[in-house]
Parts: sequence; C-alpha cells; structure tokens
Amino acid sequence: MNDVELWRELGQQLRVDAIRPAAKAGSGHPTSGMSAADLMAVLLAKYLRYDFADPHDPHNDRLVFSKGHASTLLYAMFRAAGAISEEELLTYRQFDSIFEGHPTPRIPWVDVATGSLGQGLPYAVGMALAGKRLDRLPFRVWTLCGDSEIAEGSQWEALEHAAFYELDNLVAILDVNRLGQRGETMHGWDLDSYANRARAFGCHTIEIDGHDVEAIDRAYAEAIDTAGQPVVIVAKTIKGKGDPDVEDKNGFHGKALDHSEEVIATLGGVRNLEIEVAKPETGASKHEFPSETLELPRYELGAEVATRKATFAEEFRDAIPDRYFEMYIAEQQMVATAVGLQVLGWRPFASTFAAFLSRAYDFIRMSAISGASYCLCGSHAGISIGEDGPSQMALEDIAALRAVHGSTVLHPCDANQTAKLVERMADTEGIVYLRTLRPNTPVIYGPDEDFEIGGSRTVRQGDDVAIVGAGITVHEALKAADALAKEGIEARVIDLYSIKPLDAETLRSLTCPIVTVEDHWAEGGLGEAVLSALGDADDRPPVVRLAVREMPHSGKPAELLAEAGIDADGIAAAARSIARAHAGA
Amino acid sequence: MNDVELWRELGQQLRVDAIRPAAKAGSGHPTSGMSAADLMAVLLAKYLRYDFADPHDPHNDRLVFSKGHASTLLYAMFRAAGAISEEELLTYRQFDSIFEGHPTPRIPWVDVATGSLGQGLPYAVGMALAGKRLDRLPFRVWTLCGDSEIAEGSQWEALEHAAFYELDNLVAILDVNRLGQRGETMHGWDLDSYANRARAFGCHTIEIDGHDVEAIDRAYAEAIDTAGQPVVIVAKTIKGKGDPDVEDKNGFHGKALDHSEEVIATLGGVRNLEIEVAKPETGASKHEFPSETLELPRYELGAEVATRKATFAEEFRDAIPDRYFEMYIAEQQMVATAVGLQVLGWRPFASTFAAFLSRAYDFIRMSAISGASYCLCGSHAGISIGEDGPSQMALEDIAALRAVHGSTVLHPCDANQTAKLVERMADTEGIVYLRTLRPNTPVIYGPDEDFEIGGSRTVRQGDDVAIVGAGITVHEALKAADALAKEGIEARVIDLYSIKPLDAETLRSLTCPIVTVEDHWAEGGLGEAVLSALGDADDRPPVVRLAVREMPHSGKPAELLAEAGIDADGIAAAARSIARAHAGA
Repeated sequence: MNDVELWRELGQQLRVDAIRPAAKAGSGHPTSGMSAADLMAVLLAKYLRYDFADPHDPHNDRLVFSKGHASTLLYAMFRAAGAISEEELLTYRQFDSIFEGHPTPRIPWVDVATGSLGQGLPYAVGMALAGKRLDRLPFRVWTLCGDSEIAEGSQWEALEHAAFYELDNLVAILDVNRLGQRGETMHGWDLDSYANRARAFGCHTIEIDGHDVEAIDRAYAEAIDTAGQPVVIVAKTIKGKGDPDVEDKNGFHGKALDHSEEVIATLGGVRNLEIEVAKPETGASKHEFPSETLELPRYELGAEVATRKATFAEEFRDAIPDRYFEMYIAEQQMVATAVGLQVLGWRPFASTFAAFLSRAYDFIRMSAISGASYCLCGSHAGISIGEDGPSQMALEDIAALRAVHGSTVLHPCDANQTAKLVERMADTEGIVYLRTLRPNTPVIYGPDEDFEIGGSRTVRQGDDVAIVGAGITVHEALKAADALAKEGIEARVIDLYSIKPLDAETLRSLTCPIVTVEDHWAEGGLGEAVLSALGDADDRPPVVRLAVREMPHSGKPAELLAEAGIDADGIAAAARSIARAHAGA
Repeated sequence: MNDVELWRELGQQLRVDAIRPAAKAGSGHPTSGMSAADLMAVLLAKYLRYDFADPHDPHNDRLVFSKGHASTLLYAMFRAAGAISEEELLTYRQFDSIFEGHPTPRIPWVDVATGSLGQGLPYAVGMALAGKRLDRLPFRVWTLCGDSEIAEGSQWEALEHAAFYELDNLVAILDVNRLGQRGETMHGWDLDSYANRARAFGCHTIEIDGHDVEAIDRAYAEAIDTAGQPVVIVAKTIKGKGDPDVEDKNGFHGKALDHSEEVIATLGGVRNLEIEVAKPETGASKHEFPSETLELPRYELGAEVATRKATFAEEFRDAIPDRYFEMYIAEQQMVATAVGLQVLGWRPFASTFAAFLSRAYDFIRMSAISGASYCLCGSHAGISIGEDGPSQMALEDIAALRAVHGSTVLHPCDANQTAKLVERMADTEGIVYLRTLRPNTPVIYGPDEDFEIGGSRTVRQGDDVAIVGAGITVHEALKAADALAKEGIEARVIDLYSIKPLDAETLRSLTCPIVTVEDHWAEGGLGEAVLSALGDADDRPPVVRLAVREMPHSGKPAELLAEAGIDADGIAAAARSIARAHAGA
C-alpha cells in the first residue's frame, strides 16, 4: 500500500471503528465521527508526533477533539495507534470504562475534557501558548472542531488570541459537515464564510475537500510550513460519510446507526491496520526559567490596605513579563488559557473582577471535569465596591465557585492573609478561587502568621453569640462586637476565610447562637456553607444569616453595607436579638 | 447655528457634561465618554427617533450603551434632550440617585443594564429582532460599543446572528479610542481589523473619523439606507478628546479628571443647548399575532414520560414558526436575545441543556440587574442523563440560578407538573428557571392538578422520617419509602418542585428527621435551600443531605444514581439510619 492507499484504508477503518462502539452502546455520535475520519487518518498516519507510551512527554504534539461528541473517532484513532485494544474500544459508555460519551483526561491521551462545544479550541490556544512562550518546544497543537460549534463566541476569542500571540504551532481543523443537532448550521457548506472570518481574525486559512486524502495531506504540509500565524483548515465533509442511507441527511445526529452491520460491510468490514505513530523529536529541552525564593509582601499591622492589592497582576507583569499573558477583555479565553497552560504542567493564576468570572462559568465547570489545577483571583467582590454599581459587584461568585467539583474558595479579610493564601493556592490541587476586596481594610494579622486552607480564625472570644464572616464583614463584625461588649454581650468573631473547604470542627463546637454575615447573595454563600456544616447535628444553635437580599446600586460602601444590613450596626442588631432570645430561652 | 455648528457645539456640551458628574463624584469614566461625544451628538440631534416623555412607546428607537462605563455621556445626552436637569445629572453615583456608575433600567430611558462588557450589542440584537420579526415596526436599535469589548466572543455571536436575521434596523457604533483599562487594545487604531471582521461576519461596515461630525452624519445616513444587513460604524476616536493633558494617554481610564474646571474652560465652558429630539413616526401599529386558548399537553397517570418532553422547543417551532428563533450553538446570544425581546414586552422562553446555561451565566446575572422577565428551560439535568457523561450533566445549575436576584427555580418530577409549571412561568416576573430530565419518569400527578410557584407536594405520608427531593429523586424517594415501610419505618416524601421560592412553612412544620436528596452537587442546591429554610429555628430536626459528591462519568442512569447514593437504596439507607437514631434518642 502506498501512502494514499493507506490513508484511504485507515479512513475507512476509523469510520468503521467510530460506528462500532456506538452501535454496541446503543448511543453516541457515529455520524459526527464519520465526517472527520479521513482528516484524522492523514493526521495520525503522517503528521502527528506523539509517543503513546509516554503521554506526558513535553515534546508530544497535542490533539484536542473540540467536537468532543465525535469521541468514538478519537477512540478509533487510539486503537489504530495500538494504544488500546478492540475490546477496550467496545467498552464505550459503559459504567466501568474510561471511554466515556465525551473524552476526559481519565484517558491517558486526553488532556482536557470536551463536550461543551466551543471549548477545545480555546484550550488548544492555551497549550500552544505554553509551547511557544513557556516550554519553548516545537510541538504542535492540533484541534478538530465542528462547524456547529463555530457559532460560539469563545471560538473567536480563541482565534483572535492565537493570531495575536502568533501561534503558528496551532492547527484548527474545521469539519464542515453542514448538519448540526437540529438541522443545517447557519452557513451550511459555505466554506468561504468560515475562511473569511478566520482570515479576518488573523489566521492562515486553507479550504479543502475533507474526504480527499491528498488534499488533506497538502493542507497539513502547508499548515506546518506556515510561520507567524495560526492555521485554520476548512474542510468540506459529509456527515455520516460512507453510509448511503444516512450521508448528508438530517435527523441522524447523536444516534447510533441501527443498521451498523450493513454499513460496516459497505465500508469494507472491520480492519486492523496499526499505525506506528511518529514519535516527537526529543532533542530540545523544555525551557527553564530562573527561579527565585518567594518573597511575599508584608503589611504593617493596622495599616489600611485593600486585599486585592496583594494580588495585583500588574506587579507580576512588571516583575516577570515573560510569564504574564494579557488576555484582554475575554474571560472565556482567559480561563481556557489557564486550563491549557496547566496541561503542560504550569500553575497559572488568572485574574479579573470577581463578577466577570461568571462569564467563564462553563469553562470553569468543564475544567473540573478535566481535573485541572489553576488559580482564579476575583477582585472587587460584593457591594463594598460602592459607586460603580451592581454590574461590577460579584454577589453570586461564592455560590458559583462552591458548586464546582473539587474547588477551593477563599475569601481573606486582610492583606497579609491574602498574601499567605496566594502562596497556599499555588500548591493546592484543583480550581482554587480567591475573592478579594476593592476598599482598604485594616491589617489585623501579622505578616508571619500562617493560614491553612480549611482553617478559620477566631479573632475575638465571646460566648453569648458567634458572628461568622469573611472579607469585609470580618471588620464589620469586630466593630459590632465592640458595640455589643458595651451592652454586656460577648460576641465571638470567626473569620471563615476558607469557605470551601471549611472548618466544620470549629463551627460544630459552637453552642451559642450564630450570626453569619456575608457580602454576597443569601443563596449558596458563606451562610449556607455554615448551615451545611451543622445540618446533620441533632442539637445545633439557631443560625441567623445576614446577606445581600435586595438589588444594590451605586453609593458609598458604608451606605450600601448599612442598607443591606451587613454593616456593624446590622450585625449588632441581629446578634443582640438572637443572643437575648437565646439567653431568655 | 447651522447643523454642523450645532453638532460640534453639542459634542462639546456632551463632553463637558461627561466630565462634570464624574468630577463631582470623584470617580467615573469621563475619558471614555469624551471619545464618543461627537458620535452621540449627531445621533441625538439628527437621527434618533425617541419620545422621552413616553419611553415605552413601541415606535421609539432604542439606544444601548454597550460600553456602559461611559454612562456620564449617556446622562449628558438625557440632559441635552431636556429629559433631566443639571442637578439630576450631578447626582451621579450618589446613594439616592438613579444615575448610577453604569446605566440600569431604574432610569426610564434605559432598557438594559450594561457594565459587563460585550453585552449591550447582544441585547440590541434581541431588540432589533423583536422590531423586525415580532413587533414589525420600523424602529432602529443604536448601540455604542467600546473597542476593548470587541474582544468578547459574545460580540461576534451578536453580529453573526444579526447578519443571519438580516437586522438592518441595527446600527453598532464602534468607538475605537485605542486605549483600554490597562493600555492599548490588541488592534489599536487599526480600523480595518475591526471592519474586516465585521464584514466577514456579514455586516455592512463604514470607517470614519469619529470626531468629524460631517463624516458621522454621512455614516448614519448610509446606515439608514442599508438594507438587509446590520451596520457597523468603525469610528477612530481619541480617548479623553478635548483635554490636552489626557488625550490619547494611557492611565486615565476610569478616573475623574483632577483638573476638570480647567478642561471645561478649554472646552468652552458649560453649555445649555437643548435638543428637540425627533419623535418616532407612530403611524404603523405593532403587529398582533392571533392568540389561541392555551391547551396544555395531558399525560396519563402511570405513563412514562420525560419531563423535558413537556417543554420541547421543536414542538413550539413547528406550531408557531413565526415566534421561534434558532440561536444555534451560542448560549450567550440565546439569553441576550431573550433579554432583548422582553424589553419590547415579549415573554421569551429560551431552552438548551441545563449544563450549557452556565455559558450564559454573566448574561443571566446582568439581566437580573435589568429587571428582566423571561423563562429558561434547562433539560438533561443531573447524572440521570447517563451515558453522555459529565460534560452534559448540569450539577451546578440550581446553585447558580438560585444565586440570581429575584429568580425562580423549578424542578418538576412529572410531565403534567412540568406542563402546569410552564404555564405558571409565563406569568411570573423575573428570571424563571425550569430544570427538566432526560429519562422517562412515571406520571404521578393527574393532568388537572395545579402547582403553585412556592408550593410543594407531600406525595406520601409518614412521621418517622421525611425525604425531600425534586425531579428524578422524588421517584427514587417513593421507592425508598416503599422499602422502608416493609421494615416498619414510615417515611414522608415531599416533592419540593419549587426550590426558589420554597415552601418554608411545610418544611418548618416537620418534626421528624429529614433526608434531602438531589441530583446536583451538594453545594447551593436543594439540600442547602432546605437548610436555609430551617436555619434560624431554635429546634429543628437533623438534616442529612444526599447529593452528588464525586465526579460522575458515563454509565446507565441507574448505575450512576446508585454510585452517587441518591437512588432508592441510598435514600433508604440514609433514612433508615437517621430514623433509627432519632427513634433511639
């Protein structure tokens, strides 16, 4: 067999193997794999540089199935590469199998979970950026995109950033099979519409027939030769290609073929080609940056410093410009870049206003499935930002980030505590979120005090009532406790800086009534976290939860905290009332 | 004064009035308004058709400040139109003022809250779609965009949909002042880079000098004459235009000018031009669609029907194609379209997989600030979807949607209940979220039973333990109760289909121990909602919360429910244990 014959045969094998697991499982997306089989055949046989025995080799190319639903095609490639057996392939979608409906990094050769469309390409940009600017290794990132998913704005954020950073190590292969889940896409087979857009965004584009293996070969060769620009290959394909009953017909998305035996016969039956995938050149070494001893900023006790100051990205940029990447106003790409960088072993910190992390929530959700580890810094949280108004106030961020699997949620109240927690974050697995404040707050902890994730601090003793806060409300709680002390009510104040995981032991040891107070909506935040730590106890003190309950607006921070009832007066009133009721009971 | 002189003078007035409120407040974004003042002067003086006395007139043009931080310029326009006084203008950012840091619909002439960048244009697309396809009125939607915010992928979703729906009633004015918050944008003053992109996305583009009022006039005239395409005017402007010390200089974003008196003098001082803004033609009437009596689907008791079936968008599309708009795979634009449609008084239902609503979370958050009312249907929730795997499983949606101000969160377990709740949703203010299931579940309610928002149903009586679930877990709870009954444990089962607001009275009346069970992460979902209803009671039974706690994967629904401990066996085990402990206590 010459190359061309091999590619054609391999394409048919991949097609057959994209059909079989779905047929066995009774569900899946075989037709979405059949359209891209020839594209992947040429890639696997000639262009991919990958050591399946050592997926963590930093020299490996990376392959991302942005159209994650075409997973059986990806698994078919693994079989063709000799990485998995036919039996393993056919465990698709079973309870005990790592070959799930959509690919995840439970599979050794998968770097990121896909399946939420429009995410694979943004992650690929992060990986390509790592290759180009951090590892400085000549690996390439290949990503297979569906045409439907190009409607996601995140794809354009990705291409724009790829072009801006001149990521010529990135090749996006666009499988234009015309049909989405519910009929034709916006642009059908108008390849120009995709190519024109990608070109306008700064990419080198190549239009081809995605079933012509020689054209595919030429396109990949051209992609590899392209310097200074990411490459987008726009390939016209046929959904369900190879099955005359289904080819280019609507209504067959996400369905196993019910006549798979017949189709497989039409396609020439099961094949067992095994491709020796080319291994990467391993000559170059991963770039090493000089490392220095970490020196945290130190703040004087009693000074007034905003917690966000201890996390200024600008200072990082000025100190270590080589490792700072501006993502402009594109939060989805910001998070995707972080996810992509951590694939290559980096520990990224991504920062924006806490409110705008909501823009990237689907990426954060998906990255938990990827098992990603990275740090998010959200500043300007809560109504304490004041005059800018509610659009800039994160009031749902704790709820959203707590509900991410394996996440850590931190909310310090003081600049030294913030600095220490930033250090801890860097060594914590999973998605670690740090919430910081705009206004200055007094430094109440010395610069040498250490803060564990999962800990808390009792910053004032008292047994009549316990006030549990974090961030700005710790300071309000301390003022409230001062006021209450004058009335003979001794309030304990707990700084619950680690909201997830939280210090359940300390909370469960409380016997006095509890007031929780947070600059956040009442749902899903610190208050509910405290309730959840106590919920299954037989005897537990009453918990009054103070939180933001009406839509805030512009105003001075103090005015807004008072209006929401989460300032010192509001806390004192709630604590007084419950302490007295309890003392009377 | 001839027109040109008027426009120039008005531009200077708007500039001065964009400076003054920020100077008085000591914060704001005057330089971002100064760049766009001439663009807005010509619009206000000649092109806008708007009755400030009747902002709800459906014939009015709409003006959206997508760059919401330039709010002082917008308020300056209101003053120039005679809608507000100088005194009102100067209340900017004060606690009692509706003229907030970023515009919100608390102001009668503002339709949507902006301030999270990249959202105004998507909303404008929804409004333009309403004008073109529902109201069928010739109003125009003008939107002022910043250049920084064009990096948001949502802008490209917006332009693509605008072009697809041939919204020639939409004019996006792009204020290319080159400088963002942290320095130059990706493209600086490369107007072509913006125009090429917009053209590739199907828009008619016009490049101009944004300080040349005659060029602006010609551009607007051309925009109005353009048929079949949305128009993007790419205007080169100077940030801080008019202040020689600040013009085109970095470091002056989001800062009041500290030498405002001097700048105002340079600009020729305070002016008091009042423009008689042209009123819209009111000849045409809003299109009326024929209305029919609502007939809900009815399902037989005991039938097996997926709750999502009662909300199929396809059926709506087939029945009422004129009022169905396909948003393709672009969830941000889907939600933005809903928000835009409701501005014009429509009640949109937007539907996708529940997991993918996370993609639009920032839009949902912002639309609560807009006071928007619309319905979201999220299908395929939870691990009960089975084989498709975790990327498709919404497990954070309840937490995320509960933490939206004024939201309603519903999670029915049966198709009749779903249909009834859909009817209720249409009449409920605010953002109403309905969570539905992929697998079939038995119909347990008759088709004539009614369900109130904020209600619950006790579907089985019992006093040893109460099991509280919603959706799939109601059915598992019923099976668990059957099993427990055989052991002599009488379990009450509560269907908490309305998770927000929730039936606190029923929950607080419980004296037996409680088991909550949800197909959702443990954070922020039904379990914490139940805890929050009980939290401040002095005596309250212990609550054991069953939820998804480990990352799920592909498998059969039953296997996954069992693994997570939220199937009948898991529920029975938890209920048995707590019921016995309580009986023993």
